[in-house]
Amino acid sequence: MAKSKFEYVRDFEADDTCLPNCWIVVRLDGRNFHRFSEQHEFKKPNDDRALQLMTKCAQTVMQELEDIAIAYGQSDEYSFVFKKKSRWFKRRASKFMTHVVSQFASSYVFYWKDYFKDQQLLYPPGFDGRIVLYPSNQNIKDYLSWRQADCHINNLYNTVFWMLVQRSGLTPVQAQDRLQGTFAGDKNEILFSEFNINYNNEPLMYRKGTVLIWQKINEIITKKIKMPKEEEEKEVEVNRTRTKVVPLHCDIIGDQFWEEHPEILADSS
Amino acid sequence: MAKSKFEYVRDFEADDTCLPNCWIVVRLDGRNFHRFSEQHEFKKPNDDRALQLMTKCAQTVMQELEDIAIAYGQSDEYSFVFKKKSRWFKRRASKFMTHVVSQFASSYVFYWKDYFKDQQLLYPPGFDGRIVLYPSNQNIKDYLSWRQADCHINNLYNTVFWMLVQRSGLTPVQAQDRLQGTFAGDKNEILFSEFNINYNNEPLMYRKGTVLIWQKINEIITKKIKMPKEEEEKEVEVNRTRTKVVPLHCDIIGDQFWEEHPEILADSS
Amino acid sequence: MAKSKFEYVRDFEADDTCLPNCWIVVRLDGRNFHRFSEQHEFKKPNDDRALQLMTKCAQTVMQELEDIAIAYGQSDEYSFVFKKKSRWFKRRASKFMTHVVSQFASSYVFYWKDYFKDQQLLYPPGFDGRIVLYPSNQNIKDYLSWRQADCHINNLYNTVFWMLVQRSGLTPVQAQDRLQGTFAGDKNEILFSEFNINYNNEPLMYRKGTVLIWQKINEIITKKIKMPKEEEEKEVEVNRTRTKVVPLHCDIIGDQFWEEHPEILADSS
Amino acid sequence: MAKSKFEYVRDFEADDTCLPNCWIVVRLDGRNFHRFSEQHEFKKPNDDRALQLMTKCAQTVMQELEDIAIAYGQSDEYSFVFKKKSRWFKRRASKFMTHVVSQFASSYVFYWKDYFKDQQLLYPPGFDGRIVLYPSNQNIKDYLSWRQADCHINNLYNTVFWMLVQRSGLTPVQAQDRLQGTFAGDKNEILFSEFNINYNNEPLMYRKGTVLIWQKINEIITKKIKMPKEEEEKEVEVNRTRTKVVPLHCDIIGDQFWEEHPEILADSS
Repeated sequence: MAKSKFEYVRDFEADDTCLPNCWIVVRLDGRNFHRFSEQHEFKKPNDDRALQLMTKCAQTVMQELEDIAIAYGQSDEYSFVFKKKSRWFKRRASKFMTHVVSQFASSYVFYWKDYFKDQQLLYPPGFDGRIVLYPSNQNIKDYLSWRQADCHINNLYNTVFWMLVQRSGLTPVQAQDRLQGTFAGDKNEILFSEFNINYNNEPLMYRKGTVLIWQKINEIITKKIKMPKEEEEKEVEVNRTRTKVVPLHCDIIGDQFWEEHPEILADSS
Repeated sequence: MAKSKFEYVRDFEADDTCLPNCWIVVRLDGRNFHRFSEQHEFKKPNDDRALQLMTKCAQTVMQELEDIAIAYGQSDEYSFVFKKKSRWFKRRASKFMTHVVSQFASSYVFYWKDYFKDQQLLYPPGFDGRIVLYPSNQNIKDYLSWRQADCHINNLYNTVFWMLVQRSGLTPVQAQDRLQGTFAGDKNEILFSEFNINYNNEPLMYRKGTVLIWQKINEIITKKIKMPKEEEEKEVEVNRTRTKVVPLHCDIIGDQFWEEHPEILADSS
Repeated sequence: MAKSKFEYVRDFEADDTCLPNCWIVVRLDGRNFHRFSEQHEFKKPNDDRALQLMTKCAQTVMQELEDIAIAYGQSDEYSFVFKKKSRWFKRRASKFMTHVVSQFASSYVFYWKDYFKDQQLLYPPGFDGRIVLYPSNQNIKDYLSWRQADCHINNLYNTVFWMLVQRSGLTPVQAQDRLQGTFAGDKNEILFSEFNINYNNEPLMYRKGTVLIWQKINEIITKKIKMPKEEEEKEVEVNRTRTKVVPLHCDIIGDQFWEEHPEILADSS
Repeated sequence: MAKSKFEYVRDFEADDTCLPNCWIVVRLDGRNFHRFSEQHEFKKPNDDRALQLMTKCAQTVMQELEDIAIAYGQSDEYSFVFKKKSRWFKRRASKFMTHVVSQFASSYVFYWKDYFKDQQLLYPPGFDGRIVLYPSNQNIKDYLSWRQADCHINNLYNTVFWMLVQRSGLTPVQAQDRLQGTFAGDKNEILFSEFNINYNNEPLMYRKGTVLIWQKINEIITKKIKMPKEEEEKEVEVNRTRTKVVPLHCDIIGDQFWEEHPEILADSS
């Protein structure tokens, strides 16, 4: 009844199908995470708990959603790359974006206590997302390289900045002034000469971010089986192969990673 | 350095600005909530805890985000209506969608225990979202009417269906067969004659869903004030006006609601 | 055979449906008409032949295409306003744009000789087009006002500029320098004091541009009819009402035009 | 003055930039060309004048516009393929579409008399256009193959159909019935056994359509040069290389064409 009279409003919904045969990237960022990290006392410049929680959420997204070939994360952002040939939800952009960010956001709260223990979560955080298409394999590799180069630049800066604040007692404004106009080499030099830190020995997770890929895992698991004509169950060892999301902290700008993992960009749907 | 070489990938991001002077609706739906509601033992046909949690999350969305004029929810869906003149995030569709669903999803987990008490949340739920533009006030009223008419139709059906299953002992398939082809009048009649239920006396929240609007609230609050020349703080009562998100369970299809709340559709930004 | 193997390429075509319940404007501009007008010796600042040919083409577009409520033209541009409720070609943007510009362009060559007589058309001209949606009646009126205000500003400038060049013998650069930073009042004053021209007496077509609307026309036409039982045909006069595209050169910024022609913005499809 | 008040309407224009690094196809079709071809007495099934005029217009489009790598036409349609790396008009879809169809349409009228001689053009024809993006080289080759396969299927059908009508005296409905459900082999057989026509000997332009590509042309032209110290001009022969749009009627479905013309899909901008 009333239904028919109002149903015309459905026609106002626009089609937002993604162009076929393109890589679909959804990148997610924390909303106001500067404030969020202060209120939850994140360690500076890198908080392992926060980075590992981000990765846990990204793993959940990859497992719960379809067709994600690779993900890359650093700081409060994560990029998810859907396969070129994906037909998930008819490639509707809004579906890709909203499923990624909602699954990530609910996971963030759900798994918070596993990483932050006694540190209470004070309020539910927000995330924003965007979607971008990349036609060629070179384009998608360059996209991921762009994010990893960004990670490097930011982390080097943050590492020096927080050393100057935490160890040399500079105010944030003084530290910022000190670093104004410096190049990578200058920052490495400050770290080494003033703080005896070799930047290249800093943890890979900080310097390279986190890459999530699918890997085949061979497991030996123990199953209880009831044999015919026997009364009790018997324990047997079983070989099992499954596919699992694995975090890596390696360079993805050079060719080596892509040569070692040709399946990521392979064209299968 | 590396930055410049890869940065061209930014040009691949498409502009998704919403047409100005249109109402912007973001509608969110629970993902696989049929399964989710069974696993979390939702009461059928309506679970007050679940409905109230949905409304709590929607209130959080309205308070945390900008320019939401009204929201409407029922079952596992919620629609948020942004003002025609909103300039939030330059009206970028992806920003509206992802902020709504991520804030809603994180709130769902964050506030879960306030409503579900001992009932543990088993896994982080997902939500999807979509965005639709409506040019005229009549269009946006018709959109909301469409959702409320849908609420009515579904709730009447579900109310009878679950009575037949829970009280008459029919299997779900039998109940479905029984209701096949019946009109609203038939369903009302079954409820009345077989279960002595007058559908019009069912709770408004079930029959009408939930409307969220902004209301000015006059509060008297107690403040501690330190008076000059006095040593101790003194408690004084202070009048305060603030704007608050208020849930209503009323008809929004007829004119009365809109005549009583002309500010909702008023053109101010 | 071969068909099926390649037909997947059809899926790459994106949907470009225009949002319902919005006015659809297609605006067309001459491509490189500065050069075109010089090569075809257009009279400056206004060439009646060129303006009338533009209007003839626009009339053809309105008659050949569906659902154009009003058109407005000046200089080498024309805007066509399709009705809010138009369902022509399912409101596909590409259809609106390409039908308008192709019909206009072919008409321009076809009717050229009717206006330019001995002046040969040297090469086929190009036009570009764009599409814009306007949700409210105020928006579409403001759009048309914007174009008419633009016409006024440009025509006043051009009228003085060409007087300075043609009558005072200034070079184009000198004329431009002279007008740099002048206001409308200054330009009117130059016209009056130096050239004895009252700008308000300049032809309306130059100052206001051209508005095309549909008007009911009562015609008396002569038909030859063969009466029964008579041998010869007889001429009779017949009253006929038809709808015709009529050019006006009037103000459309004020309310009067819209009050006199309420049918233009009326909501019928 | 008035300008500022109305200028807000510019913000309603949406960005329609094409995704970078994709082939951009604009396909154009004659509007109501069934009727147009009857009124202008096109020869059936193929009218050389009409096909050559289409190709002349397409050549004009390629020469006047930027970055078209290849075009393909048959019947009353033409597809123009813009280079992957084209930055023409910032890749705005509306610019590509409207420039193509308007230039084509004005050329059609302009060059009509060169091909149709005494056959008068009765009215200005319309064309519609659409735009489609193809990410990979395989995709764009498959697109062109799709059009050429379509040409083959239609031309074989039309050839038999018009033989049945023109030579065997069938009505169009009878000819249609006769061909209902026949395969390519059946149609070849009818042509051969009933009309002594070997379809493979039909002109290539009919069977394969027309491919337009750029070719370097070495020309020897005669120039008049005035030599120093000599009074009269002297004629000398000069070698000149220029790039020209050349029509071919060859197969583009197989690999040979692409192997012979690797520059067409080469990645240079």
